Amino acid sequence: MIWPSHGSNPQYLYKAMGLALPKQFIDFSANINPLGPPPALKEKWLDFFHEINVYPDPFAAKLRDIISKSEQVPNESILIGNGGAELITLVARMVAGKKVVIVEPTFSEYEEACRANSCEIVYHQLIEPNFELNTADLHMSLLDADALFLCNPNNPTGIQYSASTIIPIVEECEKRDCLVILDEAFFDFLIEYESLVPYINKFSNLIIIRSLTKMFAIPGIRLGYLIAPPALVSELSKWQSHWSVNTIALLAGELCLQSGSFMKETQEYICNERRRLFSFFIKNEFVVSSSRVNFYLLQDPLLPDQFSLFEFLLHQGIIPRHTFNFPGLEGRWLRFAIKDHEDNNQLMEVLTQWRHHHSSS
Amino acid sequence: MIWPSHGSNPQYLYKAMGLALPKQFIDFSANINPLGPPPALKEKWLDFFHEINVYPDPFAAKLRDIISKSEQVPNESILIGNGGAELITLVARMVAGKKVVIVEPTFSEYEEACRANSCEIVYHQLIEPNFELNTADLHMSLLDADALFLCNPNNPTGIQYSASTIIPIVEECEKRDCLVILDEAFFDFLIEYESLVPYINKFSNLIIIRSLTKMFAIPGIRLGYLIAPPALVSELSKWQSHWSVNTIALLAGELCLQSGSFMKETQEYICNERRRLFSFFIKNEFVVSSSRVNFYLLQDPLLPDQFSLFEFLLHQGIIPRHTFNFPGLEGRWLRFAIKDHEDNNQLMEVLTQWRHHHSSS
Repeated sequence: MIWPSHGSNPQYLYKAMGLALPKQFIDFSANINPLGPPPALKEKWLDFFHEINVYPDPFAAKLRDIISKSEQVPNESILIGNGGAELITLVARMVAGKKVVIVEPTFSEYEEACRANSCEIVYHQLIEPNFELNTADLHMSLLDADALFLCNPNNPTGIQYSASTIIPIVEECEKRDCLVILDEAFFDFLIEYESLVPYINKFSNLIIIRSLTKMFAIPGIRLGYLIAPPALVSELSKWQSHWSVNTIALLAGELCLQSGSFMKETQEYICNERRRLFSFFIKNEFVVSSSRVNFYLLQDPLLPDQFSLFEFLLHQGIIPRHTFNFPGLEGRWLRFAIKDHEDNNQLMEVLTQWRHHHSSS
Repeated sequence: MIWPSHGSNPQYLYKAMGLALPKQFIDFSANINPLGPPPALKEKWLDFFHEINVYPDPFAAKLRDIISKSEQVPNESILIGNGGAELITLVARMVAGKKVVIVEPTFSEYEEACRANSCEIVYHQLIEPNFELNTADLHMSLLDADALFLCNPNNPTGIQYSASTIIPIVEECEKRDCLVILDEAFFDFLIEYESLVPYINKFSNLIIIRSLTKMFAIPGIRLGYLIAPPALVSELSKWQSHWSVNTIALLAGELCLQSGSFMKETQEYICNERRRLFSFFIKNEFVVSSSRVNFYLLQDPLLPDQFSLFEFLLHQGIIPRHTFNFPGLEGRWLRFAIKDHEDNNQLMEVLTQWRHHHSSS
């Protein structure tokens, strides 16, 4: 069976499973803010129409200005991308043919893009169920590496690694002339996060990737950015196609990054829902990853593998993300987004039914 | 002076010239349909908002179905791109480090993308003012070439080369194991056009690039597609970043390609305006390229170079496209889009003023 490489677009998952897509379903497979886009975006949407017949600003001057002020980094350290995925593609182009280490399990695009560019790929495997990041072990994996891909908080586990864990890794990599690509796509869901952005000037080898699609619920219009030393930004932008970031994304980004309390409200909403879900899971003998963000891994420890649970959920119109293409998980877990209160209730209800028929007693 | 590499975004041109952007201006530097986007797009725009929080279909199944039917090619021969520019970038990635021939003067992105990928670049220069494409001469330039970039109708001249000129070139290239990248970005502005799409199955080396941004006036949302043998489509898509085409572009494309008489109305409108403009130019001793589409090159033959005319126009808020970065033009021409009736009147009025002060008599 060929599994879809990502969540969302559930028609492809049902097709691969040989099932009909139910009329009603809840898609837990994409890690998008359940509150939807900031209200200001809907208010301005009609105005955006008048900009579609103009080429986007290829230098994204306004958006870079806003990020430069909020993140306290110079404009020349910022590259805007057509979603985080394009920025990953550009980095992979830069390290074409080189040796890269990927801390797994993680977002599959790092491997996909590096493989397309004929890189030699080494997995540094984090071990379930705690997925601890042991710096000494990682240093062993770095032998002769040219680049290290690390996602923090990590997708698909939702686990956050502290700045005091990450900084020595970046230092060690700098000594070894090895780039660190730190994907902070979900940093903005954390109530307390020690970003590595303030350290960007201290390191010559650090590239931080950010995404606006998850927090601001705009995966359909694609927007991300990258923060790195100006020399790296300049090298990466050489491979970026002209006008790659569309006008609607630029306008939406400017609005989203100035949407005041929206991010804080989201963080609190997610935190409350996560608490509620996790106490239900523990009470009902499910195992979950110790996520700090808007998604988590779940496992029914009473099963030899999770396929029967996966199938059961799909039949009920509950769509998790399969984990067959995450090295080190190979289907032994399911990933769920934290959705809104009602959707999460629906999930708990269906899992209650499941537990009723599959319990240890 | 560093000239902007493309038209549109006139703030960068005025900045480079050390001038203030006037409050009122008409931008003739971008070759976009002056009638604006199809009316159906505005009607549906609000509905599109509800799709921004969903990831785009990475396989663009619906849009590919529509193109497959209208162009009579199999789905596997179609690759949807984030504007024509992304498709050019993917082709350049595929021919990285190889020898490419570019028929100049032409769209600067071919060279830009190939240069980023360390290609050896050879110009095949068409000679002003007729820019004839001599097949025998071109064959000479093809020695050891791996790829040929050809734009038809050509940007910036607007000149159309017949299928009977192009087909023998593709045949000769196939014998030499040389790809032909035929950019048909403006094909849909021609009332009578012999596309090479019906020949796509006959050749193993032909890649046709199309754009939806010009005819449908949607450069802000980015959309193009490529038609090629399935093996080439599959190789090119390997380097494309995931979800590179946004949801709004996909929905707009589906609508645009089914917008009935819109294209025909545009073609006739452009044709009438072009006739009107060209008879004015001839009457007033301006030289123009024999364009068949929605833009043209213009020259005041009474000037040693066009810089003074360019500057005069910018001061009047008329913004042409400079030609300093078109090999073989080097600023000796100015490019103008055909805009709507009133804007074209405005151009003729300003050029009448110019001629009043700069005549041969």
